[in-house]
Amino acid sequence: MKRVVIAGMGFGGIRTARVLAGKGFDVVLVDRNNYHLFQPLLYQVATAGLEQESIAYPVRAMARHWPGTRFHLAEVTGFDFDGRRVLTDNDPIPFDYLVVGAGSVTNYFGLESVERQAFDLKELVDGERLRNHILTAFERAVIEPDPARRRALMTFVIVGGGPTGVEFSGALVELVRYVLAKDYPELSVQAARVVLVEAFDRLLAAMPEELQVYTLEKLRGMGVEVLLNARVVDAGPERVTLHDGAVIPAHTLFWSAGVKAAPLAAALGAPQKAGGRIPVEPDLTLPGRPEVFVVGDMAWLEQDGAPLPMVAPVAMQMGTYAGEAILARERGESLAPFRYRDKGNMATIGRSAAVASAFGMNLRGYAAWVAWLLLHLYYLIGFRNRIVVMLNWIWYYWFHERQVRLITERERAE
Amino acid sequence: MKRVVIAGMGFGGIRTARVLAGKGFDVVLVDRNNYHLFQPLLYQVATAGLEQESIAYPVRAMARHWPGTRFHLAEVTGFDFDGRRVLTDNDPIPFDYLVVGAGSVTNYFGLESVERQAFDLKELVDGERLRNHILTAFERAVIEPDPARRRALMTFVIVGGGPTGVEFSGALVELVRYVLAKDYPELSVQAARVVLVEAFDRLLAAMPEELQVYTLEKLRGMGVEVLLNARVVDAGPERVTLHDGAVIPAHTLFWSAGVKAAPLAAALGAPQKAGGRIPVEPDLTLPGRPEVFVVGDMAWLEQDGAPLPMVAPVAMQMGTYAGEAILARERGESLAPFRYRDKGNMATIGRSAAVASAFGMNLRGYAAWVAWLLLHLYYLIGFRNRIVVMLNWIWYYWFHERQVRLITERERAE
Repeated sequence: MKRVVIAGMGFGGIRTARVLAGKGFDVVLVDRNNYHLFQPLLYQVATAGLEQESIAYPVRAMARHWPGTRFHLAEVTGFDFDGRRVLTDNDPIPFDYLVVGAGSVTNYFGLESVERQAFDLKELVDGERLRNHILTAFERAVIEPDPARRRALMTFVIVGGGPTGVEFSGALVELVRYVLAKDYPELSVQAARVVLVEAFDRLLAAMPEELQVYTLEKLRGMGVEVLLNARVVDAGPERVTLHDGAVIPAHTLFWSAGVKAAPLAAALGAPQKAGGRIPVEPDLTLPGRPEVFVVGDMAWLEQDGAPLPMVAPVAMQMGTYAGEAILARERGESLAPFRYRDKGNMATIGRSAAVASAFGMNLRGYAAWVAWLLLHLYYLIGFRNRIVVMLNWIWYYWFHERQVRLITERERAE
Repeated sequence: MKRVVIAGMGFGGIRTARVLAGKGFDVVLVDRNNYHLFQPLLYQVATAGLEQESIAYPVRAMARHWPGTRFHLAEVTGFDFDGRRVLTDNDPIPFDYLVVGAGSVTNYFGLESVERQAFDLKELVDGERLRNHILTAFERAVIEPDPARRRALMTFVIVGGGPTGVEFSGALVELVRYVLAKDYPELSVQAARVVLVEAFDRLLAAMPEELQVYTLEKLRGMGVEVLLNARVVDAGPERVTLHDGAVIPAHTLFWSAGVKAAPLAAALGAPQKAGGRIPVEPDLTLPGRPEVFVVGDMAWLEQDGAPLPMVAPVAMQMGTYAGEAILARERGESLAPFRYRDKGNMATIGRSAAVASAFGMNLRGYAAWVAWLLLHLYYLIGFRNRIVVMLNWIWYYWFHERQVRLITERERAE
């Protein structure tokens, strides 16, 4: 029985596993976490809308239903391609086929002071940590006698006008205006600032212009200060500095202005493209290593003259393709080259407001928002998780209330 | 307007606040956490049955509905009674009346090696930490080649046959037998051991004998090894030593064999009784300090010749009494001395099995279990929390499934 090792249980890896389950392979799933994380909703954990447990799903709970698969909790540290082994912080794991999808990490583009100060949202713990930080900032503001410092504690700078930046700033401004305003009657919460900084002249670069304009107007209407053509170049504990020297006194800096391939990409031993990504053959294999597939954010593949974006739908389709390519190979066949089918784009802005572009249609407002909710519930793994998430959303919609306002770990005072 | 400071948002403190809300006081609620924790369900967080967010409720979410109250996130560090101020890790808070209910901490009775090794369940983080540890033990067992070490990784020693020890060992053995057995087909999970160690000759000392016997038989039937008349005297990373020198190779030690008053009790400046508790007057005030009330686990009050137990119902009734005593004082009246009305006792053992003793009736099995579920849902704070908890319980009952099997933080390998 041939062994397939799948390194990384992200959107790509779990789809490869699903394709190969029950097909006569010994499939070993490896991840340093024992769960699959539904990253697109992590910003709702950070804004007290969801509990972290509802957006993660144990790998073993999936593997139970996938005959021939088993899970190995370990961190992949490198590869011994000639010996056909994956190296881990535990024993090496031999393979016949290998699928690598270790995803991406935040790219600070060498801005060290920003990297030190900024929060990001990639891992499950990041959501809870950022939530603790935001709520603690308000608790400190309550007892801060100096008005300037109080205002800085209530100022949040978000860098990057892509989907994550837009969704997080919308969710944050709603948290502040609707929920925390009631929690902190002693503060004039209207003084709180949510500042979204985008380097280009528009938000949601991948969207049609009509929806970009809607998003900008909607966010501004909700109270987000959107700065276009602006870049953050430096940061300190209580300030953020822009490209033109302007200083925003702010206690919280959130960075979603770039990602790069996970550091494990370097261990693949191939020349890396922009963002550390690994160029792959049209069948997603590593050049010269037909038994090694690279999927998701780590893979660099050009289609119609541009590299595929580092987004979940690409990873999902690549993961499925890698599984099918292995099946085909074993039958002595080969698949047509991988081709990404772009089903569209969406982003939620706030309550009853989202934008979606799919099948040549542009949706915005309530209809797009409902579409966004349903699609995210559909892709979330686990029936119980779906119910808990839906419950939280209904709660918020009806009662304008987010209940996960817990500070689960105290930050040391600075 | 007179100011009442309530130090500690446990079962006692929140009831004092509820009584005083809207009665013309300036009520300041102080806690080092921004939530009230429903400790009795913490063991279900540790056994992957509940997410931690569903058993905690933000103090500010309660305070919104309590006119005249406000919350102050701070750790109380001491008291300046002559200056009528509570000292905190922030600014001191002046008071006219003070209610102190800082609860209890685990009592290891000076067993230092045990204190170093053992897990307990007092704080919210303890639940998640213990869950991570239990699940990580199984992940390590999967890859452990040495059978003896593998068995130790799957051996759990629980000390203390009170409600917490009984409930935790029942929930743990069910987690192992019904849920983890499916997750780890590569392990012979039947080799896992859950050992409950009790110093006396019976479990649930506060219960009628009939229910003690039922509990013992039920737990043993479920696969828990119950050792009566046994004490743990020493512990190391992979072993637990009993009073008779017997050594149990075990990777996990859980301690629920005793509590003592929180260290803050010493700052009250009164002579302390057993377990560091502070003797109070019949109206729950500190001797010589009629404006200072002590409620809950910290208070030592004898009734019918014995000190009141350190349990939630006592704290709740004391909290309510302290509030009413302050109201009476302001009206120039005084209340009858505090008297605890014991409404009974209950403990759940497992699925469809619990014991309850109330109003002269002894219930066991399914009826007691339903009573336990309803009562805990009733006392849990927050409608959303109740629904999420109920959902988890229904899930477990129908599907024999606990979905919060996440390792949210990796332990360092030893």
